Amino acid sequence: MNINQILEQVKQGDISINEAEQRLKELPYKDMGFARIDHHRKLRSGFGEVIFCQSKTNDHLLKIYQHFADENLEVLGTRASADQYNYISAQISEIEYDPISRILKLEKANKNHTGLIAVCTGGTTDIPVAEEAAQVAEFFGSQVLRIYDVGVAGIHRLFSKIEEINKANCIIAVAGMEGALPGVLAGMVDKPVIAVPTSIGYGACFNGISALLTMLNSCAEGISVVNIDNGFGAGYLATQINRLATKI
Amino acid sequence: MNINQILEQVKQGDISINEAEQRLKELPYKDMGFARIDHHRKLRSGFGEVIFCQSKTNDHLLKIYQHFADENLEVLGTRASADQYNYISAQISEIEYDPISRILKLEKANKNHTGLIAVCTGGTTDIPVAEEAAQVAEFFGSQVLRIYDVGVAGIHRLFSKIEEINKANCIIAVAGMEGALPGVLAGMVDKPVIAVPTSIGYGACFNGISALLTMLNSCAEGISVVNIDNGFGAGYLATQINRLATKI
Amino acid sequence: MNINQILEQVKQGDISINEAEQRLKELPYKDMGFARIDHHRKLRSGFGEVIFCQSKTNDHLLKIYQHFADENLEVLGTRASADQYNYISAQISEIEYDPISRILKLEKANKNHTGLIAVCTGGTTDIPVAEEAAQVAEFFGSQVLRIYDVGVAGIHRLFSKIEEINKANCIIAVAGMEGALPGVLAGMVDKPVIAVPTSIGYGACFNGISALLTMLNSCAEGISVVNIDNGFGAGYLATQINRLATKI
Amino acid sequence: MNINQILEQVKQGDISINEAEQRLKELPYKDMGFARIDHHRKLRSGFGEVIFCQSKTNDHLLKIYQHFADENLEVLGTRASADQYNYISAQISEIEYDPISRILKLEKANKNHTGLIAVCTGGTTDIPVAEEAAQVAEFFGSQVLRIYDVGVAGIHRLFSKIEEINKANCIIAVAGMEGALPGVLAGMVDKPVIAVPTSIGYGACFNGISALLTMLNSCAEGISVVNIDNGFGAGYLATQINRLATKI
Amino acid sequence: MNINQILEQVKQGDISINEAEQRLKELPYKDMGFARIDHHRKLRSGFGEVIFCQSKTNDHLLKIYQHFADENLEVLGTRASADQYNYISAQISEIEYDPISRILKLEKANKNHTGLIAVCTGGTTDIPVAEEAAQVAEFFGSQVLRIYDVGVAGIHRLFSKIEEINKANCIIAVAGMEGALPGVLAGMVDKPVIAVPTSIGYGACFNGISALLTMLNSCAEGISVVNIDNGFGAGYLATQINRLATKI
Amino acid sequence: MNINQILEQVKQGDISINEAEQRLKELPYKDMGFARIDHHRKLRSGFGEVIFCQSKTNDHLLKIYQHFADENLEVLGTRASADQYNYISAQISEIEYDPISRILKLEKANKNHTGLIAVCTGGTTDIPVAEEAAQVAEFFGSQVLRIYDVGVAGIHRLFSKIEEINKANCIIAVAGMEGALPGVLAGMVDKPVIAVPTSIGYGACFNGISALLTMLNSCAEGISVVNIDNGFGAGYLATQINRLATKI
Amino acid sequence: MNINQILEQVKQGDISINEAEQRLKELPYKDMGFARIDHHRKLRSGFGEVIFCQSKTNDHLLKIYQHFADENLEVLGTRASADQYNYISAQISEIEYDPISRILKLEKANKNHTGLIAVCTGGTTDIPVAEEAAQVAEFFGSQVLRIYDVGVAGIHRLFSKIEEINKANCIIAVAGMEGALPGVLAGMVDKPVIAVPTSIGYGACFNGISALLTMLNSCAEGISVVNIDNGFGAGYLATQINRLATKI
Amino acid sequence: MNINQILEQVKQGDISINEAEQRLKELPYKDMGFARIDHHRKLRSGFGEVIFCQSKTNDHLLKIYQHFADENLEVLGTRASADQYNYISAQISEIEYDPISRILKLEKANKNHTGLIAVCTGGTTDIPVAEEAAQVAEFFGSQVLRIYDVGVAGIHRLFSKIEEINKANCIIAVAGMEGALPGVLAGMVDKPVIAVPTSIGYGACFNGISALLTMLNSCAEGISVVNIDNGFGAGYLATQINRLATKI
Repeated sequence: MNINQILEQVKQGDISINEAEQRLKELPYKDMGFARIDHHRKLRSGFGEVIFCQSKTNDHLLKIYQHFADENLEVLGTRASADQYNYISAQISEIEYDPISRILKLEKANKNHTGLIAVCTGGTTDIPVAEEAAQVAEFFGSQVLRIYDVGVAGIHRLFSKIEEINKANCIIAVAGMEGALPGVLAGMVDKPVIAVPTSIGYGACFNGISALLTMLNSCAEGISVVNIDNGFGAGYLATQINRLATKI
Repeated sequence: MNINQILEQVKQGDISINEAEQRLKELPYKDMGFARIDHHRKLRSGFGEVIFCQSKTNDHLLKIYQHFADENLEVLGTRASADQYNYISAQISEIEYDPISRILKLEKANKNHTGLIAVCTGGTTDIPVAEEAAQVAEFFGSQVLRIYDVGVAGIHRLFSKIEEINKANCIIAVAGMEGALPGVLAGMVDKPVIAVPTSIGYGACFNGISALLTMLNSCAEGISVVNIDNGFGAGYLATQINRLATKI
Repeated sequence: MNINQILEQVKQGDISINEAEQRLKELPYKDMGFARIDHHRKLRSGFGEVIFCQSKTNDHLLKIYQHFADENLEVLGTRASADQYNYISAQISEIEYDPISRILKLEKANKNHTGLIAVCTGGTTDIPVAEEAAQVAEFFGSQVLRIYDVGVAGIHRLFSKIEEINKANCIIAVAGMEGALPGVLAGMVDKPVIAVPTSIGYGACFNGISALLTMLNSCAEGISVVNIDNGFGAGYLATQINRLATKI
Repeated sequence: MNINQILEQVKQGDISINEAEQRLKELPYKDMGFARIDHHRKLRSGFGEVIFCQSKTNDHLLKIYQHFADENLEVLGTRASADQYNYISAQISEIEYDPISRILKLEKANKNHTGLIAVCTGGTTDIPVAEEAAQVAEFFGSQVLRIYDVGVAGIHRLFSKIEEINKANCIIAVAGMEGALPGVLAGMVDKPVIAVPTSIGYGACFNGISALLTMLNSCAEGISVVNIDNGFGAGYLATQINRLATKI
Repeated sequence: MNINQILEQVKQGDISINEAEQRLKELPYKDMGFARIDHHRKLRSGFGEVIFCQSKTNDHLLKIYQHFADENLEVLGTRASADQYNYISAQISEIEYDPISRILKLEKANKNHTGLIAVCTGGTTDIPVAEEAAQVAEFFGSQVLRIYDVGVAGIHRLFSKIEEINKANCIIAVAGMEGALPGVLAGMVDKPVIAVPTSIGYGACFNGISALLTMLNSCAEGISVVNIDNGFGAGYLATQINRLATKI
Repeated sequence: MNINQILEQVKQGDISINEAEQRLKELPYKDMGFARIDHHRKLRSGFGEVIFCQSKTNDHLLKIYQHFADENLEVLGTRASADQYNYISAQISEIEYDPISRILKLEKANKNHTGLIAVCTGGTTDIPVAEEAAQVAEFFGSQVLRIYDVGVAGIHRLFSKIEEINKANCIIAVAGMEGALPGVLAGMVDKPVIAVPTSIGYGACFNGISALLTMLNSCAEGISVVNIDNGFGAGYLATQINRLATKI
Repeated sequence: MNINQILEQVKQGDISINEAEQRLKELPYKDMGFARIDHHRKLRSGFGEVIFCQSKTNDHLLKIYQHFADENLEVLGTRASADQYNYISAQISEIEYDPISRILKLEKANKNHTGLIAVCTGGTTDIPVAEEAAQVAEFFGSQVLRIYDVGVAGIHRLFSKIEEINKANCIIAVAGMEGALPGVLAGMVDKPVIAVPTSIGYGACFNGISALLTMLNSCAEGISVVNIDNGFGAGYLATQINRLATKI
Repeated sequence: MNINQILEQVKQGDISINEAEQRLKELPYKDMGFARIDHHRKLRSGFGEVIFCQSKTNDHLLKIYQHFADENLEVLGTRASADQYNYISAQISEIEYDPISRILKLEKANKNHTGLIAVCTGGTTDIPVAEEAAQVAEFFGSQVLRIYDVGVAGIHRLFSKIEEINKANCIIAVAGMEGALPGVLAGMVDKPVIAVPTSIGYGACFNGISALLTMLNSCAEGISVVNIDNGFGAGYLATQINRLATKI
């Protein structure tokens, strides 16, 4: 029995108000409209579905993508392998794959991109994580400016780009090893900086812990941190901020 | 010699263009206008000066505040002690101090507060850090909604507040121990969530490391993290986002 | 407007069923009866209120206890200081305090204690944590058997007690330093063992991490672990198990 | 010489009481009946033998299983590989293997399952560990309710299941990354929650440490933790609790 | 009923052999003579009682020492404070206290010291831990050679002592900070080296972890490690080895 | 528009001085001559280009080396694989590769080597890192003295070399496991010692952390540390010091 | 010039005493007889050469073993692979290899074994490390008693062996996971216990750190610890102690 | 008997050459001239004595300083307290103390300072450590340039100083929290940079570990690291390098 039926019975006088109240409280939450909020969130935010591909079997993944292809819906997959792409593209020819960012997606053509997010990296080895962030932001409708290989060990490269970077509504700064780029950037711009530590490096970088700690301890203002190698999270969060800045 | 003087000499023909070019390149950076960017940032962003009081002597701190009082400027100090307040207030009667957030400030009256930032805590012991965040955001002109003591161990308290929280442009979620509040919140709203781990707790919370790791590993989207107990950083960043959402 | 009022309007035909359904979904969660579940839990389980005293001011704590005293209700406070006890007992003479366990409580006389929980410690320095566990279990109605100072460095002391210990429905094993007691115990009994690492020790015990890791890695079956020094958590959980064993 | 023989000699007067007493004290412990306790434990508890397959050679493992097959006894193996299964099933056709939980077993048909244990997971990647727990509990005679993929990032999925979950005598909550599920669950039910951190994740999850710390620091009551990925331990312990609840 | 009584009944024919066998198996372990082994160990080894004074109250400690004083027995206390000494010496005048090693003891005069143990330190700040080791060894009857302040930063000081050190049956090497002394020593002598890391230092010494790791990773042969600052453990173990070398 | 053009316009009176000043400040930094400083650094120091080969594709790497080969310039690559060497040498026959140090380089013949750097290792397994350091130093023009396998576990091997080592301007000490060599060396020479921890070892060496901590905590004077396995960094820094000592 | 030659010149009056004194001080250390001490140590202790095979090439290793084979000397290699054995045995037929302990050796027949060392393990997975210890001890002339799979989770298995174990001069206790065996053993015997943590396990055992910490924190007396998986070190040290006990 | 006496006997024919050779080898090392090397090092390097005051008693410290005062020698003490200064200055009026660096010294007037060392800090809280470094360098004869509070969060402050900084022979960069200053500096100069992490900060700075890791992982060339807060070590090492650059 659902809400509508209970209310109908109340109207018909088939059950008392007390009885109706009791039944309403016993309904599963999803039937009570709670799940609707979640759906509303998806609809309102315009964020399509996201699949974490890494630990999924080819068959399982194919079924998921087939569902979206059949419904003519967009879907974004992260951390997909070339093997997963090959398997799925044999069935779904319109699927797209980028081996750098490892993003596997079904995306509508001629999407509009608004606002601006700057994505910066300290070195060239940070690019895969940066591309995941950038392509996620683009998939969700943000315009992206890429500024790669501007680490603090040769900081003059960064300076010539600062004014361009500061035009963005939000800056994603990706860096491994010492991880100092986000803090330096945050000291030079007046927009939120999302710091992404990467696991690239050797020795006492401890697979990204060094960069993570550097970023958490930054003395600059206007900086926050996501998990090591979490380009997706940074791209998603930057899009939220970019939307706040462009929609209102 | 400054830029103006060099240009004057070029105009007068006192030095060649080549010579002028060389001299320009040798000028200290600040004279070249670089520092101007930094000042522009302060002016444009409307963020006044911030003082980290914790390790400063009473005398040193008094001089700093006296300077702002004399100039009739606002200034915000963080991590101030009651003793510092007593010492300074003897000289500067208009100074204000809040023993919970430990904020010591000179602030103009009748300030306008725009937009909305929600500040939530898991427990009552997280309130000092939350108040630092909230009062920093207010000082910089944001309106703040406080929702305290809504931790996940009694999660029904949180649910009744979700729609109210989601009206904010940005949410600051402060939690210690298990630190699960920000992740749960981020799964229920569609606004950026800034997670602040606190050092409160005992045993394997390791002064906030447990909460920090929980937040970094959140599976929810739209969440980023600042340093343990860094209420100031969260309040500043939330204000940046709130301004992006309200000004444009 | 609450559920009852909405239903009344439906009955009177003042609003349509669709309209009523919409309004029901928009009600705050607590009004929907969700909070009731939580209250039911408290009532059904018979666990009274618990206060974490450690970071509370004397005034704040007094108000809390006064509330329970006025209502003639039981209440259990953990990690209370002697100073807190002195302050409160001046107003509430029937308050009880144990300086070992640091438990501060209002408790009805002649409480019935059922089932059996065994509380064991490796050394004498583990007794404060063990007493917190034991007294929490007793407060919630369990009978408790105390077996202290039976650590594995002199394991023959433990053997003479095994049959007695195994009569309990649940065993709490408290140990610091090497923390081997719970694993040895779990290998000798057929009841759940709740392991509590303590922070007592020096050097590479790292305030309880050593004991915590030992317990997590135990090769014995039927063992689980709570946070370092978390006697309260162990006593509460043991009572839940003891009730399952005795009530049904 | 065993106890019986010594006693016989005492009766016959062949040795003095003092001499007999001395000999008794010198007997190996197992001969003194101590090992009996251990056997009693197995018999009384009804827990059959368990084999940790992971580091065992095919030959060694076959011999173990052949022994149980010959004796017509049940045996449960954990962390078995498909290769181990193939090798053994060529000889023992009645052996059963589940590639998800990696359990390899000889089990009687038509086993009775009593009581109820709920096994919940935060995500789909936690299912292998959850299945190990669930199948271990079933092997030892418990009825199991599986509630998978109800993590806190989409917490409404969990709510619709709470009343069903709370009917269990014990709840196993399996989660990786942030690991918040067990704490949220423990705040909503009144039964013991056994938390199992999993090693799935990336970055600062540190192969399960993040989830482990979250669970140890949970502010909810009635929760304890087993080792990372230790589904077996959780299933065993839950069965002990379930038996206490159903047998008495 | 004890063993003797059971045997008497067997002899008298009051109980059957089967019945006697059953009763014997049910006797508590200590009554079965197991505890005797422990006492035998004390007697055979000649190690008197040891008290860990650190966390004991003055009253509790006084009772312990009074017991040994009354029985005219030796007793050794470690980590005693000057305050504990003052309290106890007011009652037991023959008690001895050394503020460097913090050893508080009752010891017979004219004790014989045999064999030889060398105790070396890297610096002067390691001396308190070294003295604890040395005085424990002396208390238990070993002769001790002290070689202090011979750290590897000025390694020539060590060389002039090597032949003297190598005459010992066992060497205790105490060092903090880099902790290299035991490894260098072990490479130059042919006797067991017991390495004791100390917690003295600053920065990345992490209260002795640095020295502990250095010692565990020593490439030299014939070296083992005890806990940080565990002079007592080193002195006890060295005495065991010294006795093996001198008694047989 | 560049500086020269702006100055020309000032000279011609086409723009005012104020306008020129404004334009100058808005020029990108690199155009302002800042990048020149960086180039000056390279030219002045005589350090050629360095490539970190490890994560680069064969194609990418070939293009880089081809560029330098075409320009007839030197270039040094670190952490190159044999596979990378084979791929590139097929095109660039003059490329040189050393499988021990994994250095891949284009180098002019008959280079002059000045001053002296000593490179020492604790064991033979440290040689790859030491060779990276040594060959980097040689590539940049330093003379190198190799003293390998002189670890502290057999310290007499080191003593016979001390006077020879002390003739160097700078000493690189490479060691894994306990990592004590640099501290012992620094106590015996009066030149800067650059300590390089290596990741070789097992157990509690934690991939070089043990050696790193030992070196940071050395009580000797005149010692500093680079990252684990960072032979390149040590060779570069030693060359800087060697040049300071030889050039002036 | 060596010492002898200098002294000859003094005797002949060819050089003054002052000159001779100066020359003597300038001689390399090894010529001064220092190295003699090291050789004496080898000779006196009777410990033959030991090779750490793990990181050595087949060719390099063959040369080393060929040298010992040619000289008809014993040599012991640790951590050798089956591949290394196959390569070398093709040339040196008398070489012996044990795949469990991974020891590769040339050993004289009919060696005498004296004294007694007990080698115990907690589980069967600890046997490879235990066998390394046992075979090293045997190679150096000790008699070894193996007591495997007597871990504390089934502690009655250990008790029946205690008296036999206590007959040894030294006990090696090998354990992974919780690592409690050495502490329990040390509480039951009066001989030195050398604890060896192993890296076997999963989850929070952290490759042996858990066991290592347990052992360092043992409350029992007479216990010390070697590096994780360091069976060789334990076997060597135990032999030193066994020799002290048997030779004098 | 010393070398001289032995040689005299050889010359007189009182002992044979063989006998003399034997005796020489048996002399303690210091008598053999080894200690001379150490003294030579002190003399040659011109580094006076250094005292670590922190853990020394007032009396002990006074004796040390009195010795140097009586001998009219210089001496430098680090980490001295104001209390130590007061105690000693009552006896030795010429002693000098700086409460910022906590240096307590006897120093000759009109000392010559040569070369140049730059000491930079990220913030004002790093100044105590920087002053220790600077004053140590000055005490040992180096000229020092102080550039404080030029951290990367406001990097333009640093740029105006770069050319001045690069005139130094060696740069000491002191920074806490994120610790990025040394890496940025090393990318802009061509002189050795000695990085000193400081323990100032809060949260995830872990008393300097964050800054330490940042510095070890710096991607810039020409940088090495000393222990957390080790201003003394940096000042000493910088002086060694400065001397190499200025003396030769």
